[in-house]
Amino acid sequence: MTIAGSQQKLATVPPTLEWIGGVEGHLRLIDQTCLPGELVMLDCRDVETLFEAIRALRVRGAPAIGIAAAYGVCLGIQGAVDVAEILQRVDATVSRLAASRPTAVNLFWALERMQRVARSEAALGPRELAQRLLGEARAIHDEDRRMCREIGRHGAALLADDQGVLTHCNAGGLATADYGTALAVFFAAHEAGKRLHVWVDETRPLLQGARLTAWELCARGIPATLICDSMAAQVMREGRVQAVVVGADRIAANGDTANKIGTYGVALLAQAHGIPFYVAAPTSTFDRSLASGEAIPIEQRSADEITLSFGRRTAPVGIGVYNPAFDVTPARLIRGIICERGVIEPVEASSIARMLDGAARPGERSPASG
Amino acid sequence: MTIAGSQQKLATVPPTLEWIGGVEGHLRLIDQTCLPGELVMLDCRDVETLFEAIRALRVRGAPAIGIAAAYGVCLGIQGAVDVAEILQRVDATVSRLAASRPTAVNLFWALERMQRVARSEAALGPRELAQRLLGEARAIHDEDRRMCREIGRHGAALLADDQGVLTHCNAGGLATADYGTALAVFFAAHEAGKRLHVWVDETRPLLQGARLTAWELCARGIPATLICDSMAAQVMREGRVQAVVVGADRIAANGDTANKIGTYGVALLAQAHGIPFYVAAPTSTFDRSLASGEAIPIEQRSADEITLSFGRRTAPVGIGVYNPAFDVTPARLIRGIICERGVIEPVEASSIARMLDGAARPGERSPASG
Repeated sequence: MTIAGSQQKLATVPPTLEWIGGVEGHLRLIDQTCLPGELVMLDCRDVETLFEAIRALRVRGAPAIGIAAAYGVCLGIQGAVDVAEILQRVDATVSRLAASRPTAVNLFWALERMQRVARSEAALGPRELAQRLLGEARAIHDEDRRMCREIGRHGAALLADDQGVLTHCNAGGLATADYGTALAVFFAAHEAGKRLHVWVDETRPLLQGARLTAWELCARGIPATLICDSMAAQVMREGRVQAVVVGADRIAANGDTANKIGTYGVALLAQAHGIPFYVAAPTSTFDRSLASGEAIPIEQRSADEITLSFGRRTAPVGIGVYNPAFDVTPARLIRGIICERGVIEPVEASSIARMLDGAARPGERSPASG
Repeated sequence: MTIAGSQQKLATVPPTLEWIGGVEGHLRLIDQTCLPGELVMLDCRDVETLFEAIRALRVRGAPAIGIAAAYGVCLGIQGAVDVAEILQRVDATVSRLAASRPTAVNLFWALERMQRVARSEAALGPRELAQRLLGEARAIHDEDRRMCREIGRHGAALLADDQGVLTHCNAGGLATADYGTALAVFFAAHEAGKRLHVWVDETRPLLQGARLTAWELCARGIPATLICDSMAAQVMREGRVQAVVVGADRIAANGDTANKIGTYGVALLAQAHGIPFYVAAPTSTFDRSLASGEAIPIEQRSADEITLSFGRRTAPVGIGVYNPAFDVTPARLIRGIICERGVIEPVEASSIARMLDGAARPGERSPASG
């Protein structure tokens, strides 16, 4: 379903993810591979369609794929006749969707949460259990909305008026249920009246910065300039950047952070220019089972993304290609991690543990510890 | 004139630049914008065709545009009836071609050299003067061939066996008259039996690494892996790179080096990983009139190179774009400058002056001082 060309006004942009209907409903996504040229909606009515959508990055961004996977469990159980079949279908769906992408931990976090609910509520009837699972997916979705606003609020306090900021990839509304993690920081600062100029790394190979982040910033009327990834050092050297904020796909117990390939290089460049480098991510992005970033699995993607990604061959047949989708930025390069509970600073195992183990606020679940 | 698809064997690849015929001849170029998809030859029979070819990067690379410009002066005087007209046409051609691209100093160096010859030889008849100018252009061309070999020889001595090396953009045969500057180092080391693995930055926005460097390495059968520019930090962190070698477009008296945008970032990343960073360039690339890199003019190119270069729009209409074609790497980040006379190390004004002011070898002109 194609809605329109790319120059959407914000009010006309549909949600990144939306569950349509009740337990027999379906998940509607913005197909992000078509942006910014076209706004195409994809209706996922079965697990395989969603699996392909996650794998092909039609829906992407760590929080968004967590939410999508939770709804995917609701798709997986449709038509099951009894609780035993629901439980079996939950496990099968969790296994299938867990194989879609390996790095972002929110995917596994959301799937495990759905699985836990299914097992603990198995005394319910099939209809009630299905309702309960859809309720849990909706709760994950709602929590993500609140998370974005809280991250925005905490992060905006770190930015002064009249600053240049730089981001890599897309950690915006298209990566979450509301208005993002890294971009939430900029959006909240902008709403608070701070004048920002955003430098947008285009983010090769798939250009999430050029296609998605630039689109979100244009839609909100925030001054922004697109650059190639290779220009970030020069822009920093020219004194145009006072802070870097990026998202995260998985954060180890010590603060080492996996994010889109290129993030580690940006962090080194920021360090070389004395620019603070922040990560913005919900607590569901922490993987405390990993002591450090060394153990984070890094997805390797197809060579075609580099040699053919825009519909024409731009490298000779026969050249070797290396295409890691993520890298790991060591904690020592990160000034602070902005999560929905506040800012973790300094970034080290003890301060992370303090934040994650601290009492959740009323009405808030603590995903990383729960 | 299209010759064939991209998978050329080395023996079948025509020269990057070739003067066809005598004083009334023309310049034949590989149109590098068509690589690696097609090998298309462009015949330049007038100054405007050459001007456009330089401006549009059909011929690019600092040494190659110097050679092309020298031949351009020979095109510019064709049909002149007397020496006065030749001199007037030389000046007009020099002015025109000097406006094609601002950063690479070899262009200005070659044009000034042609202009100097025209003025000093004005006592000749028109036919003899035209011959003399073509002879000078051929001399610049020949010197460049020898320069490549000498840079290769000096640079190869810096590399050990079984190393990973990384380069940015294309400083190969397509950028010179023979087999390059930075790539000459790899080619000479390879010929000397050293096993290298070359990591090739794709070099956004125009992908000279993916399109040209990868093509040259494939043609020579040298093991190579293409990466996005944003992956260089990760490849370094994985211990896969033991040296970086790049070309240069202009080097100031203190060693600050302008080269393709992204080079400065690569130099910072190399420093952060303790990897030596070398510049390979002929002495004609030095501009001793500039005390430091601050004064090097940096070409700004069209936004379309970033937003439309893959043949389809990849960023929203309305986004701001910054597209500097070059950046300046400060001398402190450069381990050594490999020129045809040897390796300048440490890179500082005094060692550069010593190398450039040193006696030229028999039969060799000293372009930077002459």
